[in-house]
Amino acid sequence: MLDWEKIYATRAKRMGASEIRELLKLLDQPDIISFAGGIPDPALFPNEAFQAAYNDILSGPEAGQALQYSVSEGYPRLREWIVKRMRARGIDADLGNIFITSGSQQALDYLGKLMLSPGDTALVSWPTYLGALQAFNAYEPRYDRLDLSRNVEPQAYAAAAERAGSRVKFAYLSADFANPTGESLTPMEREKLLDIADALDIAVIEDAAYRALRYEGERQKTLLAMDCERSGGIENTRTLYCGSFSKTLSPGLRVGWVCAATPIIKRLVLAKQAADLHSPTINQMAIARVAEADFEDQAEKINTVYRERRDAMLKALSDYMPAGVDWTRPEGGMFVWLTLPESMDAAALLPVSLKTAKVAFVPGNAFYADGSGRNHLRLSFSCSAPEVIDEGIRRLGAVLTEELAAVA
Amino acid sequence: MLDWEKIYATRAKRMGASEIRELLKLLDQPDIISFAGGIPDPALFPNEAFQAAYNDILSGPEAGQALQYSVSEGYPRLREWIVKRMRARGIDADLGNIFITSGSQQALDYLGKLMLSPGDTALVSWPTYLGALQAFNAYEPRYDRLDLSRNVEPQAYAAAAERAGSRVKFAYLSADFANPTGESLTPMEREKLLDIADALDIAVIEDAAYRALRYEGERQKTLLAMDCERSGGIENTRTLYCGSFSKTLSPGLRVGWVCAATPIIKRLVLAKQAADLHSPTINQMAIARVAEADFEDQAEKINTVYRERRDAMLKALSDYMPAGVDWTRPEGGMFVWLTLPESMDAAALLPVSLKTAKVAFVPGNAFYADGSGRNHLRLSFSCSAPEVIDEGIRRLGAVLTEELAAVA
Repeated sequence: MLDWEKIYATRAKRMGASEIRELLKLLDQPDIISFAGGIPDPALFPNEAFQAAYNDILSGPEAGQALQYSVSEGYPRLREWIVKRMRARGIDADLGNIFITSGSQQALDYLGKLMLSPGDTALVSWPTYLGALQAFNAYEPRYDRLDLSRNVEPQAYAAAAERAGSRVKFAYLSADFANPTGESLTPMEREKLLDIADALDIAVIEDAAYRALRYEGERQKTLLAMDCERSGGIENTRTLYCGSFSKTLSPGLRVGWVCAATPIIKRLVLAKQAADLHSPTINQMAIARVAEADFEDQAEKINTVYRERRDAMLKALSDYMPAGVDWTRPEGGMFVWLTLPESMDAAALLPVSLKTAKVAFVPGNAFYADGSGRNHLRLSFSCSAPEVIDEGIRRLGAVLTEELAAVA
Repeated sequence: MLDWEKIYATRAKRMGASEIRELLKLLDQPDIISFAGGIPDPALFPNEAFQAAYNDILSGPEAGQALQYSVSEGYPRLREWIVKRMRARGIDADLGNIFITSGSQQALDYLGKLMLSPGDTALVSWPTYLGALQAFNAYEPRYDRLDLSRNVEPQAYAAAAERAGSRVKFAYLSADFANPTGESLTPMEREKLLDIADALDIAVIEDAAYRALRYEGERQKTLLAMDCERSGGIENTRTLYCGSFSKTLSPGLRVGWVCAATPIIKRLVLAKQAADLHSPTINQMAIARVAEADFEDQAEKINTVYRERRDAMLKALSDYMPAGVDWTRPEGGMFVWLTLPESMDAAALLPVSLKTAKVAFVPGNAFYADGSGRNHLRLSFSCSAPEVIDEGIRRLGAVLTEELAAVA
């Protein structure tokens, strides 16, 4: 019998099970109020529009093309739609700047694959999207903390990398409604990030997965749009914009995209050709049809529902949370991020909450590259009705009140 | 402006453009008879069955699940169908032994990712599937030639690897109707391969993409089935069976699978979770429905058509090829592999053939890990009617006759 451990590459050591994903499997039980998931509400999916789209595709002249092998860069009609959308955001993109991926998770995988040799440094925020760490981990990077709230000299990142025998390859972050905090970068922080990237001469991966989910406030410029302005056009930019239809139309179809300068788009196309040939054409065709006909209406529909749920969660937090607990007030996205007193450990709190309150959340340490952040937790409001949110937060508030009393 | 070359990982050097794939883009012109592609005939796709399947899914109780995030291992109902099929082939597989991929290309990518550290050795046949080389190249392996026609001592592979500071991780090959030769391993060669793998204590990647396309002769045991017999059950095997629906139902939906022992299946699930979360659920649901209802009929339908085309190609080759040219007589698959006299170079011949005969093929060197094999070429019969095949081979025969006369 083969000892599989002996046969694995060194990178396999860092491709372990994610605590949080294992956890999520256990948390979705019917009698539990779960704020743990970070998924769209399936009741909001445009099922009928998709049904009409698949029918149209498979009964029409594109049926053969829908089921056949295709080009790695993606379905041109969908890429055209994306071009228009990017242009409306001040980005001078053309068809050659758009690359279709199987969700933005795949974009992160391919970008890690293209840029990270073992030991290379990726700058990420503390906390950051867990799935980005998982995607990059397969390429054995070193992480350093990108902190835009303090005045860190750009060269400090380079110097720290050099001391570790490494070099910085890119900064990764979500500028709008980040997972897990729900927060967005201010315009000044966006400029600062691009200043750092310029000074270090590195790439920037802009994860825009939640960008369309805005419930209040003014739309901010994307990092890529700012980069275009600063550098004189998309071909001079260093920003790799990763978009997704997962939060707006459907995550199950796995359709996302990268918008960037053509040299790296060409590399991504080659990476995809070698890795899975192309994303399923039929789903790209369906997304193109539904996006063309319904994108704005669909975005408005989900934003109306999610806004109400966010409001319900913020109100409930303010009604039920004990003193000493703080939280973010996101203008969009799916998450609120709680900060407990330093002495508390959200991972230890979870079983208590599940048992006594039947409320689930995700402990914060999962989102830290160094496993710190134990006094934080993530709540998602996307899949619960306002009255359920109120009840769940009331119960969680009671648990926290009791725990804080025990600590005091 | 960022110098992208400076930012890439070392592996990016080996993720270059494939000559052949670039070539294929040029060859599909309407006035050319192309034997270059290696794709199914889209006229044979079960469009109506797929249309009914997508309708059924999106109008029924699974609509929400079809469009939602899902588990990385794949849609259970499809995995159940695959389990039954593998069991009918003498493999004692269970649900935990089946992992769904986005086509078998993705299986090759993930298996390379899991097993190959830079410099590790992969044993491949000379020639082998170009896409496998592309998938593995991203993990910077060394290749050695797996030759089952000669009596190579297993330890010779280990010794050669050791001399290169490397170790052998796996052998990759297609036992049935291989791309590019169309040939299959004999039962004795299959045993020999498993003997070698046992002796070296390495894994075997069995690429079964063409297995369902048999036009004559007896079905052979898969390597995995033989491995099960030899080792006492699937949990003791070292063979990673990569299956695909691309050649039978549809390549565009990108659905394939791996059947193997559970320890490596679990690793593959983690790799996928980090790389693209899961393959699109709706396509897995559609494939499950069409496979359950129509797989055998569909296989029979395409085999009838492809058999006729293979027969037409073999007859035309025998009618028109000059002395000195030899070719394989495959019992299945999509390809016939020509061997020209040693002095000839198929890559140099291609422009001549395109210009004077308007016939396209793929030069053989693309399929050799070391770029040798220049006196071979690959012909695909899958997409041309018998009379077109006859005309194309007649013209190609004339070109070769002329070239041979010039050489002589």
